Amino acid sequence: MKKGLAQTLMARLEALGRISDEPGRLTRTFCSPAMHRANQLVAGWMIQAGMSTRQDAIGNLIGHYAAEHRGQAGEKVLLLGSHLDTVRNAGKFDGPLGVLTAIACVQQLHEKKLRLPFAVEVAAFGDEEGVRFHKAYLGSMALAGTFDTRDLKRTDAEGITMESAIQDFGGNPKQLATARLNPDRLLGYVEVHIEQGPVLEKKKLPLGVVSAIAGQTRAHLTFNGRAGHAGTTPMALRRDALCAAAQFILEVETLAKNRADLVATVGAVQVFPGVSNVIPAQAQLSLDLRHAVDDVRRSAGAELRKRARTIAATRKLQVDWQAVSETAAVQCDGSLSAVLGEAVKPRQKTLVLLPSGAGHDAAALAAVAPVAMLFVRCKGGISHHPKESASEADIRITIAVMGDFVQRLAALHYERV
Amino acid sequence: MKKGLAQTLMARLEALGRISDEPGRLTRTFCSPAMHRANQLVAGWMIQAGMSTRQDAIGNLIGHYAAEHRGQAGEKVLLLGSHLDTVRNAGKFDGPLGVLTAIACVQQLHEKKLRLPFAVEVAAFGDEEGVRFHKAYLGSMALAGTFDTRDLKRTDAEGITMESAIQDFGGNPKQLATARLNPDRLLGYVEVHIEQGPVLEKKKLPLGVVSAIAGQTRAHLTFNGRAGHAGTTPMALRRDALCAAAQFILEVETLAKNRADLVATVGAVQVFPGVSNVIPAQAQLSLDLRHAVDDVRRSAGAELRKRARTIAATRKLQVDWQAVSETAAVQCDGSLSAVLGEAVKPRQKTLVLLPSGAGHDAAALAAVAPVAMLFVRCKGGISHHPKESASEADIRITIAVMGDFVQRLAALHYERV
Repeated sequence: MKKGLAQTLMARLEALGRISDEPGRLTRTFCSPAMHRANQLVAGWMIQAGMSTRQDAIGNLIGHYAAEHRGQAGEKVLLLGSHLDTVRNAGKFDGPLGVLTAIACVQQLHEKKLRLPFAVEVAAFGDEEGVRFHKAYLGSMALAGTFDTRDLKRTDAEGITMESAIQDFGGNPKQLATARLNPDRLLGYVEVHIEQGPVLEKKKLPLGVVSAIAGQTRAHLTFNGRAGHAGTTPMALRRDALCAAAQFILEVETLAKNRADLVATVGAVQVFPGVSNVIPAQAQLSLDLRHAVDDVRRSAGAELRKRARTIAATRKLQVDWQAVSETAAVQCDGSLSAVLGEAVKPRQKTLVLLPSGAGHDAAALAAVAPVAMLFVRCKGGISHHPKESASEADIRITIAVMGDFVQRLAALHYERV
Repeated sequence: MKKGLAQTLMARLEALGRISDEPGRLTRTFCSPAMHRANQLVAGWMIQAGMSTRQDAIGNLIGHYAAEHRGQAGEKVLLLGSHLDTVRNAGKFDGPLGVLTAIACVQQLHEKKLRLPFAVEVAAFGDEEGVRFHKAYLGSMALAGTFDTRDLKRTDAEGITMESAIQDFGGNPKQLATARLNPDRLLGYVEVHIEQGPVLEKKKLPLGVVSAIAGQTRAHLTFNGRAGHAGTTPMALRRDALCAAAQFILEVETLAKNRADLVATVGAVQVFPGVSNVIPAQAQLSLDLRHAVDDVRRSAGAELRKRARTIAATRKLQVDWQAVSETAAVQCDGSLSAVLGEAVKPRQKTLVLLPSGAGHDAAALAAVAPVAMLFVRCKGGISHHPKESASEADIRITIAVMGDFVQRLAALHYERV
């Protein structure tokens, strides 16, 4: 039975993976024709799993599996799900895995003719990646009621406004507030997602419970030195901006290695004039810092800023530090995560809690509900790439864990009543 | 009188600086219309200085100041000079200064009605920078007899072959051998040039005698690591190609600082994919190593290659080292340089010998004659830039030194006879 669900899920991932806005590769963006077909396909699977479905004002597809005492005033809702949009040239797992495991979880209940003391809703968000309008979490922010309606004026690469994109998709941009879920009724939001990192694979564990979604600091640094002839300027008289940058890059690495769970990356470098026989006058760097605890991230950022200044001063050059963005960490709910952890424990040798370095819909929903996340091991830590994958065996365990999780939650609900 | 020569020389540098192939900036390339006008102007100055002039088969302009017993069989020739071509958007001093100080040196003799026991020729080379046909030293190689006639097939950006460019300039590409000077008659080649570096300025000295023209190793390195999500890949599981490159860049700097007179530069860096939220999978670097002693340069290159491998091995990534080019050092002639040094000594507090990190026509002529070079202090070490400059005061001293030098050489000649 469970084998059947995992097999079906793999086939569904393949089917969704073929629904693309671009020929030959998977790209499915907010309110696009491919998203329309994806919603239709997924809605059919929701209905098979015993759910009623609706498409909300922003274009999210939502399946509803009624509680045992359906329609009862004050009925609580457990929200499961993830997103159906993708990056360009995406893999098949990032997003859809969370939607399909949620549907499989409900299908298990439906097949056993089980109802829970709360409704289960499955959200298939229309935008998490932010590819089309360069703004992420559009779908989950609409549910959380944190959507900024000024964003409706944003335009895509073809000049189409978000407003008319939503309209054409069959949504209602003037009534986005209707998409908001009542926070008082939300028991919580639980999302299954591929890890997008190598930790679980390294630990040989199928699953991990997410402790928090890391906060992020992005900065842009410019070291300004002095150009000079590579052949005629003695080493002692140089003000080489690239050497300063290299020293900084290694300081970033060392600092991050010495602080538990901090990740720090210089991903982009540009050197000017950038020719082999001229000493670099300028080096520009990106910096990306993430940690689940905001204070750790902020203090690391301050420390690195100080070190950049020290490097520049020692080398007699200038450094300019430009803050690009700052996003606070989102803590997963302790109780909800504990129940999730209980469901994981019997199924693998250790329970591991790990922070999520990437953002997820759960971050948007944390504004209005307790959230929890379950990470699934993915091959080589690869994501946002056609090679992204998770095994059928791990997905089978995931479905079992999610089934166990909702039943444990139901049991707790009865205990409390 | 000497003040007059320096003043005139400054005005001539300005006049030449206005002769360009590009409006608004100085760019004068091999066999171009601007070079034609420059040759005409400079030929006039040569004639004023008592010289006869000729334009040789490759387009070099050469002035001849006859020896005291002119036309004598076996008459020796002292060759002075430099080049008249420039880089794009050039300064006014790199090249022309050597030609004009040579002419001023002869003019001093002419004004005093002095003849020397050898002829003095002033070469104004048509190509040293190699801008038009991406091959340097065309002019001086023709004189040295080392010009490779296969290069005549090279084409410029407009598809014009070197052969037809020389033809159109009034040269004779079929008879380039006629440009060759008879090595048996060459007493030596002496070139005045701006330093193109900051050493003399730092030492507060107008002039320096060049010990050697450094050899050069150029290489291209590629570190191949593994891309990864900047948020989800723990530091310990990364194979960051940029961190490896940064470590290498600092090793290059440290090694060069610890070996006297070695200069080593990483001037170009490219990172792939080069976005802020992805761990760099690949970093490409240029490496430029120069030293006046080939063994020092070669052993430094070998050492850096080993260190690149060690860095890669330690970090579990690959490195590919591609040799781009290798140019041997050229030693300046000890006797000729000693005479030049004697002429410098009375005119500044210390005599300094320094290697030239940049290439010069002297490197080409060293194949057939003893060579010596005199470096003139330049502001901020800047060259290949409109801001390139040397002071009139320093140029006045240079002219005096060159006048003294040729007379000392004449005296030595009589001693030997």
